[in-house]
Amino acid sequence: MISESPWDLSSIVPTLMEFRHERDWEQFHRPKELAAAIAIEAAELQELFLWKEGECAVEIQDDEERMKEISDEIADILIYTMYLANDLGINLNEAISGKIEENSERY
Amino acid sequence: MISESPWDLSSIVPTLMEFRHERDWEQFHRPKELAAAIAIEAAELQELFLWKEGECAVEIQDDEERMKEISDEIADILIYTMYLANDLGINLNEAISGKIEENSERY
Amino acid sequence: MISESPWDLSSIVPTLMEFRHERDWEQFHRPKELAAAIAIEAAELQELFLWKEGECAVEIQDDEERMKEISDEIADILIYTMYLANDLGINLNEAISGKIEENSERY
Amino acid sequence: MISESPWDLSSIVPTLMEFRHERDWEQFHRPKELAAAIAIEAAELQELFLWKEGECAVEIQDDEERMKEISDEIADILIYTMYLANDLGINLNEAISGKIEENSERY
Repeated sequence: MISESPWDLSSIVPTLMEFRHERDWEQFHRPKELAAAIAIEAAELQELFLWKEGECAVEIQDDEERMKEISDEIADILIYTMYLANDLGINLNEAISGKIEENSERY
Repeated sequence: MISESPWDLSSIVPTLMEFRHERDWEQFHRPKELAAAIAIEAAELQELFLWKEGECAVEIQDDEERMKEISDEIADILIYTMYLANDLGINLNEAISGKIEENSERY
Repeated sequence: MISESPWDLSSIVPTLMEFRHERDWEQFHRPKELAAAIAIEAAELQELFLWKEGECAVEIQDDEERMKEISDEIADILIYTMYLANDLGINLNEAISGKIEENSERY
Repeated sequence: MISESPWDLSSIVPTLMEFRHERDWEQFHRPKELAAAIAIEAAELQELFLWKEGECAVEIQDDEERMKEISDEIADILIYTMYLANDLGINLNEAISGKIEENSERY
């Protein structure tokens, strides 16, 4: 199930869609709801850092349990983002490339 | 610059890292800050749906300007998520696959 | 229009309700929508602090423009929270007092 | 401890400050951290409405357990907002009144 590149999410897409279809959850996944779900998961990710100032990447990496929690929240954000992109027919690759180009001109 | 699969983000990673390095922005990108940035971008995505109830995917897809706005916010969320995953050495592919497996057992 | 205590919001409530009624906005103010609006305003408040680490209250207070921005976002959060509390018949005073008591036992 | 008006939060302020002081939590309450805490609590409030479309106030009011959850999250949002306003010397009453006036001109 796992693709060779850590950044290639292609092989996950069919599994994601199947997972949702089997549970008949498409009916809940209106774009607006998915956007809300992404924001809620993003807040859960942020909560893992609340009241912890000045922590750097290396300190976090040494804490296996925290790494698992962070990794899980990132996965949740991406899962809902992939559903939304799929449902609206947004090409993630092009969306990001386009945004980087715009940012390159701006900054 | 654009990879063939819309879900394969591999080819964007070097561009993203270069973009940040050229502007010397690594110093601002502590994991906690990136998590905050993801949450803020997720709220901006959500704002595009505020006060608009019951809209379905097709209606949104017919509105080119909205599609561009949504696509841009999704890109922003993904860009910060990719920086965070890169900096913590999180494999997106494995993170998502692992989460889907856990969810499959739970639901 | 302004009450004497900075923490007494009573005198604002009728103005808030009138403002909404005149614009016929009750129809948009379902509890779920108000909760989304609060979260979006909270992200806008948070954005004022993004990439700015270690800043203390005094530094912020010296910057009149920032104080105005922060004050405006706090107002937006409170306005939507007051609408939601009003519509659901939640007594803010009791809600907060109850929560402090629970927290006192827990921590 | 409870003031007579549900919207008069004055009598809660000393209790809030004492609660924090006794636990020596002022050190964690930088403005930026409080803003993050508000956003996280706002997401927890929003989560109570996720996947539930079309619900109106009356239906929610009939569900005592949900009312308690919503009330608790509103309290959390307000508690952090009051700490932030207190620490920055922001007058809530004036902030909200000012914002309503601006909005009245705009809409």
